[in-house]
Amino acid sequence: MSPVSVSPQPVIYIVEPFGGSVRRQNPNLPHVFWDDAAVTRGDGVFESILVRNSQVVNLRAHSARFARSAQLLDLPEVNEDSWVRATREAVADFARERSGGPFEATCTWTFTRGRESTGVPSAWITLRELPASVIAQRDMGVKVMTAPRGYTITPDLPDSEVSAPWLAVGAKTLNYVANMAAMRWARAQGYDDVIYIEPAEKLGDARVLEGATSTVLVFKKGGKIRTPHHGRNVLAGTTQQAIFETAQADGWRCKTSALTVDELRKAESVWLVSSTRVATRVTKLNDEKMPAPANEAEIRALFEKAINASLEG
Amino acid sequence: MSPVSVSPQPVIYIVEPFGGSVRRQNPNLPHVFWDDAAVTRGDGVFESILVRNSQVVNLRAHSARFARSAQLLDLPEVNEDSWVRATREAVADFARERSGGPFEATCTWTFTRGRESTGVPSAWITLRELPASVIAQRDMGVKVMTAPRGYTITPDLPDSEVSAPWLAVGAKTLNYVANMAAMRWARAQGYDDVIYIEPAEKLGDARVLEGATSTVLVFKKGGKIRTPHHGRNVLAGTTQQAIFETAQADGWRCKTSALTVDELRKAESVWLVSSTRVATRVTKLNDEKMPAPANEAEIRALFEKAINASLEG
Repeated sequence: MSPVSVSPQPVIYIVEPFGGSVRRQNPNLPHVFWDDAAVTRGDGVFESILVRNSQVVNLRAHSARFARSAQLLDLPEVNEDSWVRATREAVADFARERSGGPFEATCTWTFTRGRESTGVPSAWITLRELPASVIAQRDMGVKVMTAPRGYTITPDLPDSEVSAPWLAVGAKTLNYVANMAAMRWARAQGYDDVIYIEPAEKLGDARVLEGATSTVLVFKKGGKIRTPHHGRNVLAGTTQQAIFETAQADGWRCKTSALTVDELRKAESVWLVSSTRVATRVTKLNDEKMPAPANEAEIRALFEKAINASLEG
Repeated sequence: MSPVSVSPQPVIYIVEPFGGSVRRQNPNLPHVFWDDAAVTRGDGVFESILVRNSQVVNLRAHSARFARSAQLLDLPEVNEDSWVRATREAVADFARERSGGPFEATCTWTFTRGRESTGVPSAWITLRELPASVIAQRDMGVKVMTAPRGYTITPDLPDSEVSAPWLAVGAKTLNYVANMAAMRWARAQGYDDVIYIEPAEKLGDARVLEGATSTVLVFKKGGKIRTPHHGRNVLAGTTQQAIFETAQADGWRCKTSALTVDELRKAESVWLVSSTRVATRVTKLNDEKMPAPANEAEIRALFEKAINASLEG
């Protein structure tokens, strides 16, 4: 049978939240109930994981963050074995149904507080081909506007008596309305993506936080790579961590630091990194073009090496 | 046939987002797909509406806020006729299937950006019996802890050049992870509910915002009723507005104002009002008991009158 270019169906596996069997779900049928907390309150957590030619990228880091997110939301403990097993079965199905050949796919893990009427959490994974538009951005780069997030997270307030631990800072939840709205805004202004900033009197002095769905990586002279401190307003990125590990071993000087918009403008190159898009170069920042750096090929090779170092069979 | 006490099934109607037919959906079958933006991003809006003995409470106000929420999120324009028609059909079905008799139910309208694979928004309403626990709180009242929200919304920053219109402030979205987490926190501390505050050096000076899922109403000496200014950090409450209209006509002196925690403590009574619970009195605020006011019966009669004034057939 010759390879066909028809996209295969997504593969969905329902995961038993307390461990046990996993079962395949027909993607042409809905499986989420009207009273699921994901639907009524966005009350759940997720991870998006890259699968490249049947190998799962950075599985352990995603699994660890997923478990931490669930814990922060008081969801039942994540049974990692079930999730990994479902992922492996889905990947095997997907590869088989695609009749071989190289592929890239997104595996999404979703864990919600479940149906109000049953109290049982909902858990499933989906695996589907990576959209061509996402792959294209790796080569094309992105035009980015900086934008204030519009809110400031203050889980621990100056007065140490007062704190808001219920904010579950660091959990990767399903509450992405603001991020999606910022992306729509950017597209309406002719941009492809958004970098959140903490505004200052002068835009150049504004503190850089993160992309709407990515981590900011800055390459400076002398083989330096910088990324904003993660914490309250910046989610720790699994891709950034993988890149730092590989880069550090290869002699790059990697550090988290307090970055301003001016530092982005003056950098040799700025990249947005995330699990499935991997990395895309910022080709325009607000109204300024950002030309390709001399070491672009070297940087791309570094990213590729970091991904390959994170492959799990 | 004699009346039975068995709860009827919820009634679900799927609404055509661009107008047209509405159709009944079996509540025992899921109808939300894995790639619906509600499930993947919490990207949608909702309203919860009280239905009392086949009459819908405050329908126009809910419908107006729903349309505004959708607009703020760049969802297609709400076809109000379809939603109202679906609601009326659901109410008629629910009453019939319940074999008559008085009832209270929650009607939830949900409108999401829809499936990624189709780009068509998802729209449906559900109607189900009001939980006994919610009804009980009307009589029992609630023990409430004040809590900093943990983040500050700043869509318009001091420097007017900088704003974050994408925050869609005022939209009632599905992003309720933080509110639900705050409620779990409160319950773990022995409380029933949460009033959000903007923290100050002294708790008594902290600015009162809103309940986790309700509006704060304060009754003061001299027939005064106060509620916090709505805007950035406080959603405009439909129930509060209905109560103010009726109260004003009856000679109460109603105003929005900047309220502190100390003003709550010193008030004659404090109430949380919302669409389906209607009103519940705060019987304890942090570690202080709040005794019932002398005019409790009068206040309850006022709430009842406001609801009755908002009934639509």
